[in-house]
Amino acid sequence: MALTAEQQQEIEVARGATAATRRPTVPALEAMLFQATPVLDHGFVRVVDYMGDDAAIVQAARVSYGRGTRAANEDRGLIRYLMRHRHSTPFEMCEIKYHVKLPIFVARQWIRHRTANVNEYSARYSILDREFYIPAPEHLAAQSAVNRQGRGAVLDGPEAARVLDLLREDATRNYDHYLEMLNEDDQGSPLDPSRHGLARELARMNLTLNAYTQWYWKTDLHNLFHFLSLRADAHAQYEIRAYAEAMMTSVEAWVPMAAAAFRDYRLGAVTFSAQMLAIVQRMVAGEQVAQEGSGLSKREWRELMDALGRGE
Amino acid sequence: MALTAEQQQEIEVARGATAATRRPTVPALEAMLFQATPVLDHGFVRVVDYMGDDAAIVQAARVSYGRGTRAANEDRGLIRYLMRHRHSTPFEMCEIKYHVKLPIFVARQWIRHRTANVNEYSARYSILDREFYIPAPEHLAAQSAVNRQGRGAVLDGPEAARVLDLLREDATRNYDHYLEMLNEDDQGSPLDPSRHGLARELARMNLTLNAYTQWYWKTDLHNLFHFLSLRADAHAQYEIRAYAEAMMTSVEAWVPMAAAAFRDYRLGAVTFSAQMLAIVQRMVAGEQVAQEGSGLSKREWRELMDALGRGE
Amino acid sequence: MALTAEQQQEIEVARGATAATRRPTVPALEAMLFQATPVLDHGFVRVVDYMGDDAAIVQAARVSYGRGTRAANEDRGLIRYLMRHRHSTPFEMCEIKYHVKLPIFVARQWIRHRTANVNEYSARYSILDREFYIPAPEHLAAQSAVNRQGRGAVLDGPEAARVLDLLREDATRNYDHYLEMLNEDDQGSPLDPSRHGLARELARMNLTLNAYTQWYWKTDLHNLFHFLSLRADAHAQYEIRAYAEAMMTSVEAWVPMAAAAFRDYRLGAVTFSAQMLAIVQRMVAGEQVAQEGSGLSKREWRELMDALGRGE
Amino acid sequence: MALTAEQQQEIEVARGATAATRRPTVPALEAMLFQATPVLDHGFVRVVDYMGDDAAIVQAARVSYGRGTRAANEDRGLIRYLMRHRHSTPFEMCEIKYHVKLPIFVARQWIRHRTANVNEYSARYSILDREFYIPAPEHLAAQSAVNRQGRGAVLDGPEAARVLDLLREDATRNYDHYLEMLNEDDQGSPLDPSRHGLARELARMNLTLNAYTQWYWKTDLHNLFHFLSLRADAHAQYEIRAYAEAMMTSVEAWVPMAAAAFRDYRLGAVTFSAQMLAIVQRMVAGEQVAQEGSGLSKREWRELMDALGRGE
Repeated sequence: MALTAEQQQEIEVARGATAATRRPTVPALEAMLFQATPVLDHGFVRVVDYMGDDAAIVQAARVSYGRGTRAANEDRGLIRYLMRHRHSTPFEMCEIKYHVKLPIFVARQWIRHRTANVNEYSARYSILDREFYIPAPEHLAAQSAVNRQGRGAVLDGPEAARVLDLLREDATRNYDHYLEMLNEDDQGSPLDPSRHGLARELARMNLTLNAYTQWYWKTDLHNLFHFLSLRADAHAQYEIRAYAEAMMTSVEAWVPMAAAAFRDYRLGAVTFSAQMLAIVQRMVAGEQVAQEGSGLSKREWRELMDALGRGE
Repeated sequence: MALTAEQQQEIEVARGATAATRRPTVPALEAMLFQATPVLDHGFVRVVDYMGDDAAIVQAARVSYGRGTRAANEDRGLIRYLMRHRHSTPFEMCEIKYHVKLPIFVARQWIRHRTANVNEYSARYSILDREFYIPAPEHLAAQSAVNRQGRGAVLDGPEAARVLDLLREDATRNYDHYLEMLNEDDQGSPLDPSRHGLARELARMNLTLNAYTQWYWKTDLHNLFHFLSLRADAHAQYEIRAYAEAMMTSVEAWVPMAAAAFRDYRLGAVTFSAQMLAIVQRMVAGEQVAQEGSGLSKREWRELMDALGRGE
Repeated sequence: MALTAEQQQEIEVARGATAATRRPTVPALEAMLFQATPVLDHGFVRVVDYMGDDAAIVQAARVSYGRGTRAANEDRGLIRYLMRHRHSTPFEMCEIKYHVKLPIFVARQWIRHRTANVNEYSARYSILDREFYIPAPEHLAAQSAVNRQGRGAVLDGPEAARVLDLLREDATRNYDHYLEMLNEDDQGSPLDPSRHGLARELARMNLTLNAYTQWYWKTDLHNLFHFLSLRADAHAQYEIRAYAEAMMTSVEAWVPMAAAAFRDYRLGAVTFSAQMLAIVQRMVAGEQVAQEGSGLSKREWRELMDALGRGE
Repeated sequence: MALTAEQQQEIEVARGATAATRRPTVPALEAMLFQATPVLDHGFVRVVDYMGDDAAIVQAARVSYGRGTRAANEDRGLIRYLMRHRHSTPFEMCEIKYHVKLPIFVARQWIRHRTANVNEYSARYSILDREFYIPAPEHLAAQSAVNRQGRGAVLDGPEAARVLDLLREDATRNYDHYLEMLNEDDQGSPLDPSRHGLARELARMNLTLNAYTQWYWKTDLHNLFHFLSLRADAHAQYEIRAYAEAMMTSVEAWVPMAAAAFRDYRLGAVTFSAQMLAIVQRMVAGEQVAQEGSGLSKREWRELMDALGRGE
């Protein structure tokens, strides 16, 4: 992570300022507010604002006048009911805002989630930092033959070293050429007063997709859960999953009841198709069922057996 | 407005509870938090939560690490620039949540704004209050022949009295029949234990469109400005405009710089078509221009003259 | 259903006009295009336009240049894979537009689905038809004590007759007073030239929630599936379910492969929480498990047993 | 533009297939359907499907049963009225789907428009083409001192040559290293069977932002107009403007009345703030007004004078 002393100082100043508010306030999230949690080699996630708490979900579901006086137990039960039955609108009543620093190729996956508000640092008007994501050696992998979506045999030895060298050299060279074309250093001063510079909006195209960008990203809790269900999942690419997991920590501090319900009914849940369910019913009744004649494809059968803990 | 003693008490309890927060806080909005502003005869608007302030708009536009140290003057200039050039994403970084009580026919207009989060009091599971919107006599109007969208000659005397009687009697009778069909009083106790009741989800269909409903409604500042630009406008129906104006007051307390920019560049602004602009250019150059031969329809010409303060 | 001879004629004219197109075309859906399928006592659903077909889903998933030349079998497999793994964006590439006539209280449930385009017949500018939804006797029901969300014991005999009389009389009286206040007949002619009329935007508030409105409603296939998964479900209120089922028929004509995948993996599927799954694993392994000590609440246990076909 | 013979063949096959439809059909758009319009050096835009036409806008605004029988003149007047008064929902009733090939840095600007459906060619699972955007010499520019958002003095001579060389060499080298790390050629065959390859999802990060990607992009006409109003504008970066202009051509073939209204009331229109309007009123009345004392900042004053055709 690459916070400059000045940035760290700005964060400390923000953390030092408190005010009295009548709004729902969550001490556990206040404790981490503004602080940057490191992700990958130069990235971070930090919560910069939030609205609502577990009780606000309940309050909206009941359209009530006050904060409600029910027992925590009743609130928990209602939140779990809402999550289980996919009543999404009460969760939309909580909102959170993050400041994220992330590689551009991760930003391109992330931005596909459309129901969020985004302000990205603009490489059209500004100069990006000289920082690139270089994977840790243990995250290099050969593409698996079985599952082209995951990573298989880990690259190592000279092959891994060659890959890391290429990534580092290409990113660095391209960045340096970017500055040369701009004819500005990273403070905006001309490198060579006798030359023109290329417009920033054009020079940026020489950067590599592992260059870091940053943005403010704000979303409601329902859409955040949707994001996390896809990106904190084992099928997600490691790099975006690392961000999702850091965000999950902040969600657990913020809305512990909703986060637990999310873990039980979404993250850890499985969905069985009509055909799969019929097979499960037969198995529960003690019947032996084989893939052949089950009506499931081999792939679906394997997914079912995995879910039932019967994969070999 | 019809807050019960119990509701008023819940609001007072909520107002009495304060906590320390590191989040951006706006004292002028805190002062009105949770309090119900009366709208129409039984409705209200009240702010129940908010996120962000004027500085948060600036902070997001700059993707900065801290709260920023610029002069208020610079922040104001940037906010006005963003508003003038329709850079909408920084305004999306502020969020507000309202609790609103409103007639169903107003709710039906309102809900057409899709970029908001809503939790409505459910007449499928709950019993609505015995309250109906009856216009004040000065708001009754005959539909104008010139502009079928507004209201023209005001109904008065016996005609007005007849209209108000009909509205009151029909709404009341239908509500009482609703309770009779439910066979429940408004506390849910059976009115006549020897009878079944009709399901709430069906009985509600006997209610009139001036019955009151209520909801939690949450949106970001950009979308709120869009809502206000349409609903605080003179062309909007009076009843929804009354809500928009009450909300505008809370926006001015919350984000005074953004609200002023909105008034100047949106609410009070006019848009001229390419053809209108060409005519304005000729007029500014001292030329006399008449509708005939201007290329504008009579309707557009009248709109242009009105905008230029030259309507008769 | 209440199509006038003139409306029926307009539909026939539209059905009679054909043109040549290079676009994907679905004969089975063309056959029903523009025709109104009756729903409830005066409502209908009719498809007025569509874009795409099963192959367009595949084409978008592959970002291909032509229509693709794969075997139907491969396309089917890909569509089922996409549905199973909730890859939603390829389904968003198909779009359908409906014209729907429906009671206002149904419209209010429906409009909560925000990711659609809507143009509603405006009671602010137009006069609504003299038609109200009156449930068929077999759809009247007392609210169940067990499940307040469904309907329990059916109202019948004199109780049912009384309910139907009230609904019919109140709706009719209120409609007639609506016309009287407007001082217009349903063709817009003054009923009494010596009187003013009330503005349409106000008079409409005297109508009941079972009055019929109509709209054009357009959405993409992914969002339509989401709508159908909630509204064609047994927990949905009968009246909106009747519309969802009529729409499901058009979807099956339009995109048969996607519709079948939707039935298998969404409509007929069940989701088990992490805790439920652990119990299913134990049961499949031959273990006897009881609610007590299972970690599930009684309610969740009953849901699980129902799903496994072991409810009593 | 880089269509392979096979791709060209697929397009020709698609163009050759026609079917009869009852849907609204636009011959002028049919004529260009599927054909790729070249944009930049290797990109293109092509329309792959559409729904609706000018009459469909009118039909939705009127919620009518048939195609309507009004004179073209009346339809035109209604469409212009809807555009002028920002009644956006009828325009949402038309939908269009494009296949676009574009540089990644352009895609990153484009995707910020969230109200569209997108399927992008996945560099996680596929291998990108060996194509990069290299600006034509006349589009290189130094960043203007006056307006940092546009381009000022054009780079030329040896400076320009150096920039183009760097862009070309860096993109090419990085692409070749991408293939080397993958250890696959662009057909997916191993380059060196004795080595592992890096997973595609990781190797792609070595690519530069001027590499080309492609996607299917589908949106409704209202949102397309919003996109075009921002991206066909003189303030937009040249590269995305080139796409917007190619799309504008297809819109004019598709919905000529709506496109003309868009040109008059949006693209060619100006918005004056309340303060600007007051000054225009004074100027139209013959008064001399100077920036000093006008209440406008110098920047706003210049914008106003430019709009009035009085810039020096």
